[in-house]
Amino acid sequence: MEGAEFHGMAILLCENLLNLQPGTRLPPLGAVDSKVTMPTKKELLKTPIRHIDIAKYNVVPLVDAMASMAYTSRDTARAASIYEMMLRDHDCGVILCLAGSLISAGLQKLFVDLIRNNMVDAIVSTGANIVDQDFFEALGFRHYVAGDEYKYGNGDGELRELMIDRIYDTFIDEEELRICDETTEKIFNSLEPRPYSSREIIREMGAYLDREGRTPAGGNADSIIFAAYEKGVPIFCPAFSDCSAGFGFVAHQHARRGKPMVSIDSAKDFYELTQLKIANPTTGLLMIGGGVPKNFAQDIVVAAEILGVDAPMHKYAIQVTVADSRDGALSGSTLKEASSWGKVDTTYEQMVYAEATLALPLIAGYALHKGAAEGRSGKNWTETLARVAEPVSA
Amino acid sequence: MEGAEFHGMAILLCENLLNLQPGTRLPPLGAVDSKVTMPTKKELLKTPIRHIDIAKYNVVPLVDAMASMAYTSRDTARAASIYEMMLRDHDCGVILCLAGSLISAGLQKLFVDLIRNNMVDAIVSTGANIVDQDFFEALGFRHYVAGDEYKYGNGDGELRELMIDRIYDTFIDEEELRICDETTEKIFNSLEPRPYSSREIIREMGAYLDREGRTPAGGNADSIIFAAYEKGVPIFCPAFSDCSAGFGFVAHQHARRGKPMVSIDSAKDFYELTQLKIANPTTGLLMIGGGVPKNFAQDIVVAAEILGVDAPMHKYAIQVTVADSRDGALSGSTLKEASSWGKVDTTYEQMVYAEATLALPLIAGYALHKGAAEGRSGKNWTETLARVAEPVSA
Amino acid sequence: MEGAEFHGMAILLCENLLNLQPGTRLPPLGAVDSKVTMPTKKELLKTPIRHIDIAKYNVVPLVDAMASMAYTSRDTARAASIYEMMLRDHDCGVILCLAGSLISAGLQKLFVDLIRNNMVDAIVSTGANIVDQDFFEALGFRHYVAGDEYKYGNGDGELRELMIDRIYDTFIDEEELRICDETTEKIFNSLEPRPYSSREIIREMGAYLDREGRTPAGGNADSIIFAAYEKGVPIFCPAFSDCSAGFGFVAHQHARRGKPMVSIDSAKDFYELTQLKIANPTTGLLMIGGGVPKNFAQDIVVAAEILGVDAPMHKYAIQVTVADSRDGALSGSTLKEASSWGKVDTTYEQMVYAEATLALPLIAGYALHKGAAEGRSGKNWTETLARVAEPVSA
Amino acid sequence: MEGAEFHGMAILLCENLLNLQPGTRLPPLGAVDSKVTMPTKKELLKTPIRHIDIAKYNVVPLVDAMASMAYTSRDTARAASIYEMMLRDHDCGVILCLAGSLISAGLQKLFVDLIRNNMVDAIVSTGANIVDQDFFEALGFRHYVAGDEYKYGNGDGELRELMIDRIYDTFIDEEELRICDETTEKIFNSLEPRPYSSREIIREMGAYLDREGRTPAGGNADSIIFAAYEKGVPIFCPAFSDCSAGFGFVAHQHARRGKPMVSIDSAKDFYELTQLKIANPTTGLLMIGGGVPKNFAQDIVVAAEILGVDAPMHKYAIQVTVADSRDGALSGSTLKEASSWGKVDTTYEQMVYAEATLALPLIAGYALHKGAAEGRSGKNWTETLARVAEPVSA
Repeated sequence: MEGAEFHGMAILLCENLLNLQPGTRLPPLGAVDSKVTMPTKKELLKTPIRHIDIAKYNVVPLVDAMASMAYTSRDTARAASIYEMMLRDHDCGVILCLAGSLISAGLQKLFVDLIRNNMVDAIVSTGANIVDQDFFEALGFRHYVAGDEYKYGNGDGELRELMIDRIYDTFIDEEELRICDETTEKIFNSLEPRPYSSREIIREMGAYLDREGRTPAGGNADSIIFAAYEKGVPIFCPAFSDCSAGFGFVAHQHARRGKPMVSIDSAKDFYELTQLKIANPTTGLLMIGGGVPKNFAQDIVVAAEILGVDAPMHKYAIQVTVADSRDGALSGSTLKEASSWGKVDTTYEQMVYAEATLALPLIAGYALHKGAAEGRSGKNWTETLARVAEPVSA
Repeated sequence: MEGAEFHGMAILLCENLLNLQPGTRLPPLGAVDSKVTMPTKKELLKTPIRHIDIAKYNVVPLVDAMASMAYTSRDTARAASIYEMMLRDHDCGVILCLAGSLISAGLQKLFVDLIRNNMVDAIVSTGANIVDQDFFEALGFRHYVAGDEYKYGNGDGELRELMIDRIYDTFIDEEELRICDETTEKIFNSLEPRPYSSREIIREMGAYLDREGRTPAGGNADSIIFAAYEKGVPIFCPAFSDCSAGFGFVAHQHARRGKPMVSIDSAKDFYELTQLKIANPTTGLLMIGGGVPKNFAQDIVVAAEILGVDAPMHKYAIQVTVADSRDGALSGSTLKEASSWGKVDTTYEQMVYAEATLALPLIAGYALHKGAAEGRSGKNWTETLARVAEPVSA
Repeated sequence: MEGAEFHGMAILLCENLLNLQPGTRLPPLGAVDSKVTMPTKKELLKTPIRHIDIAKYNVVPLVDAMASMAYTSRDTARAASIYEMMLRDHDCGVILCLAGSLISAGLQKLFVDLIRNNMVDAIVSTGANIVDQDFFEALGFRHYVAGDEYKYGNGDGELRELMIDRIYDTFIDEEELRICDETTEKIFNSLEPRPYSSREIIREMGAYLDREGRTPAGGNADSIIFAAYEKGVPIFCPAFSDCSAGFGFVAHQHARRGKPMVSIDSAKDFYELTQLKIANPTTGLLMIGGGVPKNFAQDIVVAAEILGVDAPMHKYAIQVTVADSRDGALSGSTLKEASSWGKVDTTYEQMVYAEATLALPLIAGYALHKGAAEGRSGKNWTETLARVAEPVSA
Repeated sequence: MEGAEFHGMAILLCENLLNLQPGTRLPPLGAVDSKVTMPTKKELLKTPIRHIDIAKYNVVPLVDAMASMAYTSRDTARAASIYEMMLRDHDCGVILCLAGSLISAGLQKLFVDLIRNNMVDAIVSTGANIVDQDFFEALGFRHYVAGDEYKYGNGDGELRELMIDRIYDTFIDEEELRICDETTEKIFNSLEPRPYSSREIIREMGAYLDREGRTPAGGNADSIIFAAYEKGVPIFCPAFSDCSAGFGFVAHQHARRGKPMVSIDSAKDFYELTQLKIANPTTGLLMIGGGVPKNFAQDIVVAAEILGVDAPMHKYAIQVTVADSRDGALSGSTLKEASSWGKVDTTYEQMVYAEATLALPLIAGYALHKGAAEGRSGKNWTETLARVAEPVSA
């Protein structure tokens, strides 16, 4: 590689490295030495993602002002207002749906705060958010800020060699992720062999964190899994094999082949969430992204009907997404479309076409600072489930 | 409702109705009577979606020309060329991933043709494509063209009352969909109670179609499930409860509560697909949309490693999607990003940012008309699985 | 129109009407009478858009927290920080580029505040923002909140009959817009017939507002045109005929046909802005949307070179847009791409893929509340132009 | 730069280089030498973009099949059918609007074919398409295929040093572009000093090509400017200074400062196009992208009204775009929205949300192969203008 021709690239790489600390003033270009070495793994994993603490920022006046503007600002304000409304409607059970890489992006504490403040009664999520990201951080690991220059795939080969995984502008240490995989296997190995709903397994993961002291009381950070465990908020991952836990399952089932083993029954997830809808007919959805969680949570209205119960449509619904509706895929389909399926009522629904890290601190922060959940108690649906969903097994 | 004020809307509605036959010349506006009644269900469900038959259109010269253009046309041409390449590489097992509402959009026959012509060896899909749409059509039901004016939610209330479900610009008769739900329940009821992979269940659905004569030999249309059943192409739906089959499961498990029942083990899906990767290390992905199927199929490289096998990354990868990469969600994440995770090799990968109904007839049609799979035999991975994946059960 | 069949739609329309007051609690559905009449023009134009006052919301702590998150939040924080940096670099002239319907969306006061606080030295804009929207409001007219249900085109026929124009979720009284058109004609009629840059004409519009007392001193609202007039901030609309002023020009030139007339020389715009770049070589771009303003402002680097002056690339650049880069169009093209053209330096550049009403209050509010422009004086480029750009005429 | 650490990148760069010839089979990775040098300018500018020849591909059966599918395929088919309809309506004048970088992307010949086959009567375009790209190619220069790896900004620094400009995945030799700039100056210098519409200037550019033999008769490629010159199709660039011609104007006006000079009157453009609307009231729009051309062409309906003529709305309208409607900007706003402004009739309108290089060969190819313009003569609006638009001058 001839040095001279790569002068420009050398500067680019070097700058990227410096950029890892956001806000740092860069030295003038002339001061940059043209000889660079690729950053080390330690250098690349230096600046952790820090989770936003919505309690610190009173966004109520800002969001109220946005209600009189247009486009996404007004949609965001209307969504915030609908979230407030569903929390003040004490009959309403609030189901939070999570798709996309949200925890790695700095939203973990936001969701923990919703749980701790009785602002959510059940969670339906992709496995990645709950296991690869939330449980992962609960085990003491972190996500890291990646420089802007890695966003578009420049450097992925080197990252691969360093065992660094990339999520757009964020890095993960794959060696740590392997420990997370293995921990899930350890938990599965400790369970009585039978089919489980993901909800049951995730509850066991909460118990594990409790036992291991991976809790605020143990001097560690709080997590969605642990907060939900304490507050009786069931967490469902209907595609539970499609995450770090999947690797644990593969290892577990491989080791147990020919013998009784733990299996993961996603039909039971659906049955349980439907029972909750039947036990608590008034419901609202706060959906971040689309995918399986959105579809799954919407479908319980129809599932209740299948069981002979005439459950009302979801009374409130909010979706924050960047997805497009034009390909007909569910992720970006409007909530009006869901109403044609009899799943979502159209009176209090709002699509917010925005990226969640920008819009959600405003929506959730608004409801928190308006005290929308004051006087509201958590519904402890874990307890409800123990009552309504009889154990099912093969 | 005062007639005069609604003159404009009356015309609008009437026009929409007329529009249901694409290409129809509209009468001059003056000829439209201002008194209209809402279309009936029969009128709304009049023009069925017709599945494109790629064998009829030799797109090779067109796609070759696009290779020398820019933007999406060139990406499409490059994707077509990579698909051709993976088919000519006879070691390579081809995994087709399906997310979004593709079958309802007129792509059923295209996928059937890929199966029948040995152009795909396994399928990973959302449940909706396979059950709500492909199995649904196999039962003799159809999807219908919805007028442009319904696209944005105008009329969803009326559709709800008529029990018509909408997918963007397409209608489904919900009463027929309920029959589909019930048929899945019937099939589950007939099975020995134990945990199943979705792959095993979908195979049973193929056997059901065979028994019932819902096959080309029986004078009916071909289907993905039946073609895959005949050709030994395993179909995985890792989030299998998240579709019409979910309703069948809920009904089944409710009826069997306290007794042995069928459960659906998505961990087994993951285990099986991983075994296929181990048995056939060279693999290529043809992904339509993102979601669970994309993640699931990519993850088997890592899962093989967990089982102690050093499996190579997917050698070829194509994704057709309208998703955005900027929210960090997996659906729109680039294949370069996947390479940082050690899942996809970057030598022969191509993202095509386009809606699938437009791009896929060009990509799949190109490979078909180039005869890329001539001399290629199907891998019959159903048989391979019988050999490599020992029965696992609780 | 048969009442029964339209019950659903009647409710929908009625709800929409009620929705015009954001945040209003809706009556229970049962209470809605099925007989409705279409809203009147007065009812539709009831709730004015209110411009956000960024001085009221100290977003600094929130934005600082976003710097440690991912995706759009981090991009927004980095953009805010680059804007702060360019204001603290007192050599740097700040050029604000405006495309999209921003003033109608509630951002007028924000831009006025940037001008009044010496945070912008020149503006390049689409004509609509400056004439149809800012000048329009300066004349005493307002934009109005449109209910969510109008967003997707339901009701456009009725709006047409009522002479209400729609911008997505915002209404304009077309009769008022016609007065705006006519006022521009009046101004053009009063000018000496010769070719003008748009900058010269817009300055005359500022003088008109001054004369007519359409100013804060006259008890009226402030405007971009007037604030820029007072602060010596030149405003360029390179496609000046493509807006309300275009209608004024057509009327003016039609009346003057065969006689000397005012013409609008966009080449002169380009010449003037290039002279400013030469007179003040260090520059930064704050771009909202893409289109002509983005291209035009970037091109002056090359234009200076054409005039034999080796002007540096724009040192700082921020773009806030929802545009996609995948169609190769300039609006969504990255700032890195602009660097290949020698237009924008890549050291301090940031794309923010977000809708402006959500992101801009954070970016501009951040710089304002950090006091980034304290100690910075406005550059009064109107005065500079009088010195450097000799009058050019046919 | 330490060789070992950059092994991965060396392979990446090398592969990119090889990729410049689409479809080339890559050597096995092991065969790649780890020592690479940056490609030279000559190597980077090796594979020219080739313009698609729609006459060669009969897409009629394919497009007809798409009419019975969903999403973008059906929208594309409906757009093709509306284009056919407007050509068969011989009263209708067809206005083609061009925004985005279309000519550089391989669509030049397609637009030339529309002109030569009497399928378009006027063009409204961004300057870049007409001058930087079409005129540029008419002068004998080419655009070049850029490897996929340059798409996201990796390498822009080196490109800058080599004087290669990038448009997403396409390269331009900036030295050739400078010759294009200078040629425009030469033409302006040769004109009588007065205000011109862009239409008049572009016609002079056609005459220049004719004189210089840069024509098919002269053994060179055909061009939009020349074909339009011959067929009497006026071309308007309402933001004419915002392109390569702008550089010519800056140089011209700088040299002539203080003396009579050529100026560019965009108001005259608007006046002329409005006169065409008045002379030929039935009109249809075929819009590629949004921006100024879309707004400008839509606005002539209102401008005619300003001149006291009650011109009908555009009877047909098609827009092909990837823009989003959610930010309220005109580029992505629906044609239904335009109908609220009284600009576009809603009976025969179609938005196609797709990238133009993929959709336009289908839409334009469909109309061509259906023989939609057989029996249609070109309207020679250049001649009409000579009759209806009296010379206007300062």
